[in-house]
Amino acid sequence: VHLVVINPNTTASMTALIGKSARAVAAAGTTVTAVTPQMGPASIESHYDEALSVPGLLAEIARAQAADPPADGFVVACFGDPGLDAARELADGPVVGIAEAAMHAASFLGRGFTVVTTLARTAGRAWDLAERYGMTRFCRAVRACEIPVLALEDPGSDAFAAIVAESRAAVADDGAEAIVLGCAGMADLAARMTAAVGVPVIDGVAAATKIVEGLVAMGLRKSGHGEFAAPLPKPYTGLLSEFEIGKPDIC
Amino acid sequence: VHLVVINPNTTASMTALIGKSARAVAAAGTTVTAVTPQMGPASIESHYDEALSVPGLLAEIARAQAADPPADGFVVACFGDPGLDAARELADGPVVGIAEAAMHAASFLGRGFTVVTTLARTAGRAWDLAERYGMTRFCRAVRACEIPVLALEDPGSDAFAAIVAESRAAVADDGAEAIVLGCAGMADLAARMTAAVGVPVIDGVAAATKIVEGLVAMGLRKSGHGEFAAPLPKPYTGLLSEFEIGKPDIC
Amino acid sequence: VHLVVINPNTTASMTALIGKSARAVAAAGTTVTAVTPQMGPASIESHYDEALSVPGLLAEIARAQAADPPADGFVVACFGDPGLDAARELADGPVVGIAEAAMHAASFLGRGFTVVTTLARTAGRAWDLAERYGMTRFCRAVRACEIPVLALEDPGSDAFAAIVAESRAAVADDGAEAIVLGCAGMADLAARMTAAVGVPVIDGVAAATKIVEGLVAMGLRKSGHGEFAAPLPKPYTGLLSEFEIGKPDIC
Amino acid sequence: VHLVVINPNTTASMTALIGKSARAVAAAGTTVTAVTPQMGPASIESHYDEALSVPGLLAEIARAQAADPPADGFVVACFGDPGLDAARELADGPVVGIAEAAMHAASFLGRGFTVVTTLARTAGRAWDLAERYGMTRFCRAVRACEIPVLALEDPGSDAFAAIVAESRAAVADDGAEAIVLGCAGMADLAARMTAAVGVPVIDGVAAATKIVEGLVAMGLRKSGHGEFAAPLPKPYTGLLSEFEIGKPDIC
Amino acid sequence: VHLVVINPNTTASMTALIGKSARAVAAAGTTVTAVTPQMGPASIESHYDEALSVPGLLAEIARAQAADPPADGFVVACFGDPGLDAARELADGPVVGIAEAAMHAASFLGRGFTVVTTLARTAGRAWDLAERYGMTRFCRAVRACEIPVLALEDPGSDAFAAIVAESRAAVADDGAEAIVLGCAGMADLAARMTAAVGVPVIDGVAAATKIVEGLVAMGLRKSGHGEFAAPLPKPYTGLLSEFEIGKPDIC
Amino acid sequence: VHLVVINPNTTASMTALIGKSARAVAAAGTTVTAVTPQMGPASIESHYDEALSVPGLLAEIARAQAADPPADGFVVACFGDPGLDAARELADGPVVGIAEAAMHAASFLGRGFTVVTTLARTAGRAWDLAERYGMTRFCRAVRACEIPVLALEDPGSDAFAAIVAESRAAVADDGAEAIVLGCAGMADLAARMTAAVGVPVIDGVAAATKIVEGLVAMGLRKSGHGEFAAPLPKPYTGLLSEFEIGKPDIC
Repeated sequence: VHLVVINPNTTASMTALIGKSARAVAAAGTTVTAVTPQMGPASIESHYDEALSVPGLLAEIARAQAADPPADGFVVACFGDPGLDAARELADGPVVGIAEAAMHAASFLGRGFTVVTTLARTAGRAWDLAERYGMTRFCRAVRACEIPVLALEDPGSDAFAAIVAESRAAVADDGAEAIVLGCAGMADLAARMTAAVGVPVIDGVAAATKIVEGLVAMGLRKSGHGEFAAPLPKPYTGLLSEFEIGKPDIC
Repeated sequence: VHLVVINPNTTASMTALIGKSARAVAAAGTTVTAVTPQMGPASIESHYDEALSVPGLLAEIARAQAADPPADGFVVACFGDPGLDAARELADGPVVGIAEAAMHAASFLGRGFTVVTTLARTAGRAWDLAERYGMTRFCRAVRACEIPVLALEDPGSDAFAAIVAESRAAVADDGAEAIVLGCAGMADLAARMTAAVGVPVIDGVAAATKIVEGLVAMGLRKSGHGEFAAPLPKPYTGLLSEFEIGKPDIC
Repeated sequence: VHLVVINPNTTASMTALIGKSARAVAAAGTTVTAVTPQMGPASIESHYDEALSVPGLLAEIARAQAADPPADGFVVACFGDPGLDAARELADGPVVGIAEAAMHAASFLGRGFTVVTTLARTAGRAWDLAERYGMTRFCRAVRACEIPVLALEDPGSDAFAAIVAESRAAVADDGAEAIVLGCAGMADLAARMTAAVGVPVIDGVAAATKIVEGLVAMGLRKSGHGEFAAPLPKPYTGLLSEFEIGKPDIC
Repeated sequence: VHLVVINPNTTASMTALIGKSARAVAAAGTTVTAVTPQMGPASIESHYDEALSVPGLLAEIARAQAADPPADGFVVACFGDPGLDAARELADGPVVGIAEAAMHAASFLGRGFTVVTTLARTAGRAWDLAERYGMTRFCRAVRACEIPVLALEDPGSDAFAAIVAESRAAVADDGAEAIVLGCAGMADLAARMTAAVGVPVIDGVAAATKIVEGLVAMGLRKSGHGEFAAPLPKPYTGLLSEFEIGKPDIC
Repeated sequence: VHLVVINPNTTASMTALIGKSARAVAAAGTTVTAVTPQMGPASIESHYDEALSVPGLLAEIARAQAADPPADGFVVACFGDPGLDAARELADGPVVGIAEAAMHAASFLGRGFTVVTTLARTAGRAWDLAERYGMTRFCRAVRACEIPVLALEDPGSDAFAAIVAESRAAVADDGAEAIVLGCAGMADLAARMTAAVGVPVIDGVAAATKIVEGLVAMGLRKSGHGEFAAPLPKPYTGLLSEFEIGKPDIC
Repeated sequence: VHLVVINPNTTASMTALIGKSARAVAAAGTTVTAVTPQMGPASIESHYDEALSVPGLLAEIARAQAADPPADGFVVACFGDPGLDAARELADGPVVGIAEAAMHAASFLGRGFTVVTTLARTAGRAWDLAERYGMTRFCRAVRACEIPVLALEDPGSDAFAAIVAESRAAVADDGAEAIVLGCAGMADLAARMTAAVGVPVIDGVAAATKIVEGLVAMGLRKSGHGEFAAPLPKPYTGLLSEFEIGKPDIC
């Protein structure tokens, strides 16, 4: 089983962290390739960043889909789950986002969860995704630490303490029975946080890796009937002309 | 990893089918024990049957939880997901129902699914579960074949043809982009049906097995804080006195 | 008119309280029989307790249904409304739960209500029932006094004061315009509490008694078409073999 | 117990039918007064009619509220439940509408109901009320017979046959397990229809009468705290000046 | 383009304010007539007031509709949007309420809004309208200043300061990104408040005026098919007999 | 007032049609500039196309925002409303999508509408937008003509007849009281279709133009507080490096 885990931002150190987190839970026999797009923003902290992360993400999906053999499944490793529907159109195997995976996983473990994320301005996106996935009824709150994404990598920051503090408040005040980590950059914190907070703390990178691996083990691929059928070919122009379906770089 | 898959009805041949389906997708290193309760109905086709399947199911959870070492996780292998909340109170590891698992898995693969089940009178329960899990927005319809549960085992029946016919109608008329099999007794049909229907067909036994296995791999257990904390001990009387928490047979 | 009011737990003193509350509001010409199951938990404070209260409850429904003449209607007198759907399958007359009745009654009197209940861990069940009955839009909050069910009977406890305090907070902070008592063991407090809190305080035992009595007066029985049709007969084994449909003790 | 049942339209023969239906189910000891407003439309078949039925309805509430002793409770006997919130502000006792009562009663008897009403243009109002009362989840459909309200009184019409035909279609095609009669003018049909259709058929006049009677028996009045507090006095001018709070005709 | 803006209460000074606010935003070529009903309450602060404002409002709609040429469109200028559905039945052109217009406009500018209104007892009505218009998901809260409607006109009152204070609290505590003014009597405050609060503050009178003007510019009228078709004629009696469709004063 | 109407696809003839439709309804004093992006797909018929239309759209927003004076408001003229949230972050004035505008406008005119669109595979997107805008309760159905977007421009096609046929079916079978045209390429059909179908038919280009013009007339801009605040600057690399905030081409 070959899984491709795509970090939609262009910060390679975060890709390394994501790859490590995915491999830590993958079964024997599963190969994980973590990739960084060749274009786009260094971090994703707005709708603008997110929209502009999608072309680079789709190029990586297309590349892995065009390989021989193609990848068996894909993880979109940013908590905004950018480009998920478009990625499903391009891919044949399952594609799962880390917000999607983490929220679903949390719903199996407790009655409600709180998302602990980076910047408050991204809370709206988290709520939109919760609705899209049917998880509104489980999502107690979205709490922000107001720590920029790339500051999570700074060992001198007090990010861990801040995330633990918000998580404890979620348990005490929101009625949260589980915590969902709201950024791929927090992927390495889940185990330490579960110990510190006393309820399950879910990292979406690990969760999505296991879900895609499981779907592949069941022999399931994305549905090719209806909304996620392959995109129709047509002219693409300008800076994005290489994205035309059928061009060498796009399968 | 040791998973216990419980068939809540008392028909051992169905337990064998369920165990086989779970093992077919389990990773190397995962042991699956399929068990049949020692009390209750031979099949579950009404709220009455479902309610009376729960004591036997809970006894099996308690037994596996009391073993040394305890089971790592549990699958409740009846599409009504009987006793799921109570099972979560008793268990330390994750507990997932097959309706829950199948609906979530389908939501990763297409925009909407139809459940194809046995008797129309159980459709209400399927809708209740879809709501409980946040899957109403994905559930296009619940279709019944009007085949009793135990008739699924009869090789001379036309069950397969009937289920395929309903599934094709779901794709054509409901806008279903995936099919969820609505009975554990259909667990061996998924691959053949995917080929016959042309969209992903999901068996909940396999799906739940992979989800529980994945949660265990991530080091996650059910939340012990709040709704799923262990039940409080108290006197139990009459026929059910053995279910008193602390009694030898109940951990 | 003969109504059977079933206390799903096995504490006879609570059955006596429930019977008294039902009779206090019954019309002239209505006979109320309050019964205690012969098996199960002494109180219901978890999903586990609730699941294990259902067999004893169903046995009482079956007994009263098999009497000559059968009971005209039934009240399930525990705020978790255990086994309500299964009871409706067994009975011919109307069956109403006390949470169901109290929430509906409150919706006729004010724009929103708060449920004041015993233990916080049961709040999830109250919310599930509110959703099941369409009452989510009226339910402002579920507040717990953290008083165990059986402690309500202790005259030396400060249960009344605690329940009044939570109710007043509900009016002040939740926007509640009515209070729903969240435990059958509070049935005798409604009138005193209405006086103390200044908004309508609803006891579900009384509410359910009047609703069932009203449905019987209108000549209405549970619908036998569809979900609540009588359960199909089939083998039952082990400890629960006496629950097989057709066995002497089950109609 | 003294209940006032108000027919919001000005057709006295319909008031007589409504009074008879209410008395047929009232308990011994309950007095029912059925009243016709002194102003407004002869039937209610549009939002315009409904809006203009409300002043006459409120005048009757005020009159009965100002009597000595005041009425104990009120039924608003038109399926659009006109003026219900305003009536609750004026009254001290409970006020229940017949759509409200019928929908709630149906929800106790089967999983879903269909409303069978007069003109299709009123279906939107029925859906609005279902939402207002939390009954959307139970309401399978609203079916119209296209029979004007006053034609229901014509013994030569084929109204009964038409209503039965729509009701049978509801059971067969909508999955309805109960039928709600969508007009007060159908109040005398419920028993015959239950026999003809084979599922419970609910008349809102009877249902509302029993619910109000039950609330009064429990000692409950409308909540005076918040939304349904008595209206504030202020100048009223023109044709409606008599509606000023404090004027002789308005308590 | 000729728009008629109706103040449903009978306070002429408020009509003047409303007319001025509408004209301030109207395009060149748009004529605005602001009218006061000839009957009804001096202010609208309860369901009772609102119900009794509707006949006077409908008479004004009918009058403007019967003029030659008829008005092109209508604004209902009270935040409870009284009689909106009935008005749509009478009118041929578009009819828009100010709560409706303000909520929709706010939804174009920020993710969520808070309504700042006069009396807390009207909050329920604001929530009902938000639901009716699909705006529940945008409505963060309804906050009351507890200032009576007519006190808004008193230059010596501290109404402006109180409304600003609630609006700032909405931004800080509710997550509001826009403010909706909850009373037509606040129509002249929007610009000053936008400056004071720092987020868009929307006056419904202006918003409704622009929406109706826009619909007329697009050549659109209310749909005459279905729910908003013209009311059926029938006898009207008593004080309201002049409202009979076809009478001289009603088109 | 200067409005910029952006056609997110790169087909200039469609931009011309869109510009004409916007100008046809704009008030005297409003200038409309219709623009075509310099990169991206020739038509938008999948999630893939939509995602890849967003960079070109954002570049046009940025350009018009950087002009002196900046544009007063923006219309996103593709029925998928691509990049709407990101565009709101970049712009200071209001930004409205044509699906958003058309659905809101329809909700003012009738109880429910049907969207008539091009390809069935885009129906899911229309439903997602209806949910996002609170319009699910008004959206009766999404019907597809299976006409590709660019075929709408072919005068020899039978597109008009097909769209009328679906619209008439919507009125007859869906209960639609208005029709929303589901593609910017249908903008010139609204008036002819209103005549042919007999209910209001709404073109989103016109509707969005009037809504943005109205918001500007009211002095309102997008909320800069919270979700739609300007994006944070950060490095952008590769093909998309010109999108870095602060680069010459991006304000």
